[in-house]
Amino acid sequence: MKKQTQLALQNYKSSDGFIHHYQKLIKEVVIPYQYEVLNDRIPGIEKSHVIANFVNAGRALRGEDVGDGFYGMVFQDSDAAKWLEAVAYSLTIFPDAELEQKADALIQIIADAQDPNGYLNTYYTIKDREKRWTNLLEGHELYCAGHMMEAAVAYASVTGKKTLLDVMEKNAEHIYQHFITEKHEGYPGHPEVELALLKLYRATGNEHCLELAKHFIDVRGVDPHYYEKEVENRDWIIWGNDPLNYEYQQSGAPVREQSDATGHSVRAVYLYTAMADLASETEDAPLLDACHRLWNSIVDKRMYVTGAIGSTGTGEAFTVDYDLPNDTAYGETCASIGLMFFASRMLEQEVDSRYSDIMERAFYNTVLAGMQLDGKKFFYVNPLEVIPGISGVAVTHKHDLPQRPTWYACACCPPNVARLISSFGSYAYGENDTTAYCHLFAEGDVSFRNGVHLTCTTAYPYDLTVTYQIKAMGDGKALAIHIPGWSRHTTIQRNGKPVSCDNRSITDDASCEIRKGYAYFTGLVEGDSIAITLDDRVSRIYASAKVAADSGCVALQRGPLLYCIEGTDNDGEILSLSLPEQTDFTVVSCPDDVLGNVMVLKGIGLRTEPIAGLYTTQRPAKRETQLTAIPYFTWGNRGLTQMRVWIPED
Amino acid sequence: MKKQTQLALQNYKSSDGFIHHYQKLIKEVVIPYQYEVLNDRIPGIEKSHVIANFVNAGRALRGEDVGDGFYGMVFQDSDAAKWLEAVAYSLTIFPDAELEQKADALIQIIADAQDPNGYLNTYYTIKDREKRWTNLLEGHELYCAGHMMEAAVAYASVTGKKTLLDVMEKNAEHIYQHFITEKHEGYPGHPEVELALLKLYRATGNEHCLELAKHFIDVRGVDPHYYEKEVENRDWIIWGNDPLNYEYQQSGAPVREQSDATGHSVRAVYLYTAMADLASETEDAPLLDACHRLWNSIVDKRMYVTGAIGSTGTGEAFTVDYDLPNDTAYGETCASIGLMFFASRMLEQEVDSRYSDIMERAFYNTVLAGMQLDGKKFFYVNPLEVIPGISGVAVTHKHDLPQRPTWYACACCPPNVARLISSFGSYAYGENDTTAYCHLFAEGDVSFRNGVHLTCTTAYPYDLTVTYQIKAMGDGKALAIHIPGWSRHTTIQRNGKPVSCDNRSITDDASCEIRKGYAYFTGLVEGDSIAITLDDRVSRIYASAKVAADSGCVALQRGPLLYCIEGTDNDGEILSLSLPEQTDFTVVSCPDDVLGNVMVLKGIGLRTEPIAGLYTTQRPAKRETQLTAIPYFTWGNRGLTQMRVWIPED
Repeated sequence: MKKQTQLALQNYKSSDGFIHHYQKLIKEVVIPYQYEVLNDRIPGIEKSHVIANFVNAGRALRGEDVGDGFYGMVFQDSDAAKWLEAVAYSLTIFPDAELEQKADALIQIIADAQDPNGYLNTYYTIKDREKRWTNLLEGHELYCAGHMMEAAVAYASVTGKKTLLDVMEKNAEHIYQHFITEKHEGYPGHPEVELALLKLYRATGNEHCLELAKHFIDVRGVDPHYYEKEVENRDWIIWGNDPLNYEYQQSGAPVREQSDATGHSVRAVYLYTAMADLASETEDAPLLDACHRLWNSIVDKRMYVTGAIGSTGTGEAFTVDYDLPNDTAYGETCASIGLMFFASRMLEQEVDSRYSDIMERAFYNTVLAGMQLDGKKFFYVNPLEVIPGISGVAVTHKHDLPQRPTWYACACCPPNVARLISSFGSYAYGENDTTAYCHLFAEGDVSFRNGVHLTCTTAYPYDLTVTYQIKAMGDGKALAIHIPGWSRHTTIQRNGKPVSCDNRSITDDASCEIRKGYAYFTGLVEGDSIAITLDDRVSRIYASAKVAADSGCVALQRGPLLYCIEGTDNDGEILSLSLPEQTDFTVVSCPDDVLGNVMVLKGIGLRTEPIAGLYTTQRPAKRETQLTAIPYFTWGNRGLTQMRVWIPED
Repeated sequence: MKKQTQLALQNYKSSDGFIHHYQKLIKEVVIPYQYEVLNDRIPGIEKSHVIANFVNAGRALRGEDVGDGFYGMVFQDSDAAKWLEAVAYSLTIFPDAELEQKADALIQIIADAQDPNGYLNTYYTIKDREKRWTNLLEGHELYCAGHMMEAAVAYASVTGKKTLLDVMEKNAEHIYQHFITEKHEGYPGHPEVELALLKLYRATGNEHCLELAKHFIDVRGVDPHYYEKEVENRDWIIWGNDPLNYEYQQSGAPVREQSDATGHSVRAVYLYTAMADLASETEDAPLLDACHRLWNSIVDKRMYVTGAIGSTGTGEAFTVDYDLPNDTAYGETCASIGLMFFASRMLEQEVDSRYSDIMERAFYNTVLAGMQLDGKKFFYVNPLEVIPGISGVAVTHKHDLPQRPTWYACACCPPNVARLISSFGSYAYGENDTTAYCHLFAEGDVSFRNGVHLTCTTAYPYDLTVTYQIKAMGDGKALAIHIPGWSRHTTIQRNGKPVSCDNRSITDDASCEIRKGYAYFTGLVEGDSIAITLDDRVSRIYASAKVAADSGCVALQRGPLLYCIEGTDNDGEILSLSLPEQTDFTVVSCPDDVLGNVMVLKGIGLRTEPIAGLYTTQRPAKRETQLTAIPYFTWGNRGLTQMRVWIPED
């Protein structure tokens, strides 16, 4: 039984502020750009062919000539799905009949590409129908299906139009037929369909979707040799993934027995998201225990301070505990988005700031860093240290690009960022019959199904005061506001009257209580206002000594934002900078053509004088210097320069 | 024209001290053990089959049944060569008729495996004669030939027996015939034969050897597409090396145009060694310029403080400037041996401590660390930071083993260590018509061809006083002693009378002069003694800020020895240790069952208290603690434990 659930998409409207700015960027830049990409109308980038693939698949089904056939990755279809999903979310904030019409038209093309038996995948439909379901390890049929199911649920929920929902329910029945009725073995090489089937189940009430999701989760790793048999039974490969690499695809043990977050990090968190969702949906305690273990494995041992996960480019994967190199990090944008999914599902089963803290950390740092500030370029990989000449160049650093590249043919992260930002409201707010929850600070108008209605005003994440104006409280409902773990001193005011709240506990106010990092307010009435003023000091973050890469170093954080130093603000060179223990930082509003209305940190650092050659026995002199740090999510927007999050402390 | 040359092998006899101890270990442990390996008489390790390969190749040539045929790597023959070379050197210190008889017998087996036309390689002779010379990229025929030439020169020089020398001169003529007379294209995928041909030329006077060495050096990279054509022209591969990876095999440009040390680090330094040797042999100024650039590229930008080179396991290779990660370092033992070769050849063209300093650094740190203290196990890879649970485990750290493994089937490093240590005298001493040179401190009796004869007494590298007793000075010859660059204060005494020598310059003694880090003594006579007392303080080493991995850190050195901290001496955990700027170290003699008569460093460090989880906003407390550092070359001898060279400075 879920303790609370995400806010319905339509019930949050941003109209100003940081989140709205990003939602507008997605609406005005990313969605239109990606639409052009999907239609192969952007010169100079590798063609996408996504829509052409669907058109050609429809022709194939009708026995017509397939034109230029299939082009792209085996999971190319998912780009259309993620675009549709982002469009659906965006329409809740920015109604747009023309855009909706484009989406409708695309949905019809997709519907026409569905096999009468329910199968839907352009790669196999165009290229080789006989290969269907023969390569779960690499084939991504279930992955693509999952993304299209998510799109279908989103689009139906927002527009009320059920064409795609019907297509995907039929597709789910086809998959059910194959894996349940006909008892074919196997489970997804890339988890995704599991979490999507659970969404589809809730949108349609079709119990087969729940059963199928549970099946894929239950059978995973029970026969860890499944993929070996699969490889033996087929005569074709895509990339030649090693079926013996159980960790990579989280298949070495039944999921209820897994404890360490392993393998391809996006696959991992997509799987864990579904596990958590299923566990709270079905009250499956052993599954929930596994989710807790896996959650702890990530956040206590395998996560960067930026909320990035996946330490290595080899397999885009988790490695081992405390192995968190800064310069060779992978930290895929999609993995941090998946971590937010996982956190959100864990929050649904237990309201605890341990989950919302991580959701916030991942969002404001890695997820936002994934996108150029103008919305036009994207990082897949989010290192915490970048050195031009090494990053993106050395064989060990090839994946750590020092600047965001243009749209990739394999465009997994950009549309993922688009759908995440466009649906921010459903991560920021949640509810149950008795309580309205504010998990993340997001300016806008929020109406909960339970009758609570409020507006949130804030210039977060730079201004750290957040005000909630109560428009309606329903019938004796409570309001619960997440107080971020990073805020060492928080002031709460009700109607301008202070409510003492230090160290995250309140003792003198019977109608406000702090539990697991949430301030629960009862007895509020229409017209009341709650103001939360968070700690606006700059914090120094220290890593566990077990993280060798961060030895002797400190990171800077203010509000939810991690900061970094870039060469651009620091005389072109940051590797020789260190931070005296006693340095105080000034937070400076520093509007910038590129960085926007950014707040930067300024303080006195030390710069070590250069030496001749590589090594010296003479301690090099250090001199004081002005040090400027910018929010991590804004790095790499001003040309090729050094960047570092962890700075040696002197 | 060489300014001076290595001491002839027979002219150095160690009898006591550190080097003698190691030479004895090679004689008593490594050489007998490897002989058993070559004969496949060690149970539990992968078979070598080296001698059986030669026997079977002989059978193949005589048209007999080849028994169990060929087994092992394509370069398996080289193990026999390196063993013979080590035996030859060892015989100069430890005459041993029985061992010499074994070597004679093996040489006869090798001679019997030589094709009447001069060709010698068991892989091709047994497996497929048609493949000869068709795969220079991977085939290692020239590499194996080179090692056997080195063995032949060494064995003839020490024993006067010329069987192998004749075999290899004939082999060189065969190679000459193929590449020069018949004008077949190509150059060695793995450089080695070039440096060996130059040795063979000097041992035999055969001008074809010089011409062939020069040819291979001259044509390298002139046609960078040679290997591509080769791959197109053959239908077989060994590992499938990428012919387009020009850097890997140093073939992207003619060698005289190369400036950055690139690619497989052993291949690189073997090539540069031959280039330097040829350049000074033939007074080839452009080639010497290239050697200077490549030398500077290594020591100014691409070398670890331990003298290790090659930053990455991917291709066992150099990467880019200043990319020197400590935990994922490759730093192959053989590469540091090759760096000593290169240094020694550069010294022959220019007597300058910049070369002897690096030779000493590589030897006392990486080369010695390559071998277990008992001589029974070997590191190929020499990281500067080891964390059990990550090192050797994480996909990025698979090559960085935390403990020395037993003898590999691919045994390149162990016999390389054996031959280097056994011939230490020829690196330590050099000479020309006018001067006797002491490049490295090595206890023993040294007779120079120029008439100088001395004995050196020292307990170096722990006791930093070195005494030279002059037995004969020839006719007005000079003695030049290298004063290591790390010694910030050096005292020189002649017959007990101080010669002022601070900051490496002498002003008040007409018969002693410091030039390029060498103290030149003239006017010495039989009976004189020179005592050099080097700086015995502990130095802190600081890296250039450009080396991101060493930011804020310090390494410890005393004498030529870099130190490291291991968990074993520091309560099992070293990642939380830091070093206050003001800590003074005590040098403590600390005899230990495993480490031997080691001198350790003791001082007050700081230990950061552990935190819960990964990150905290509260600065963790630090408390003072006793910190113990051991010589880097002794690390990993006492079980699985953490190790670190670079320590955060507080």
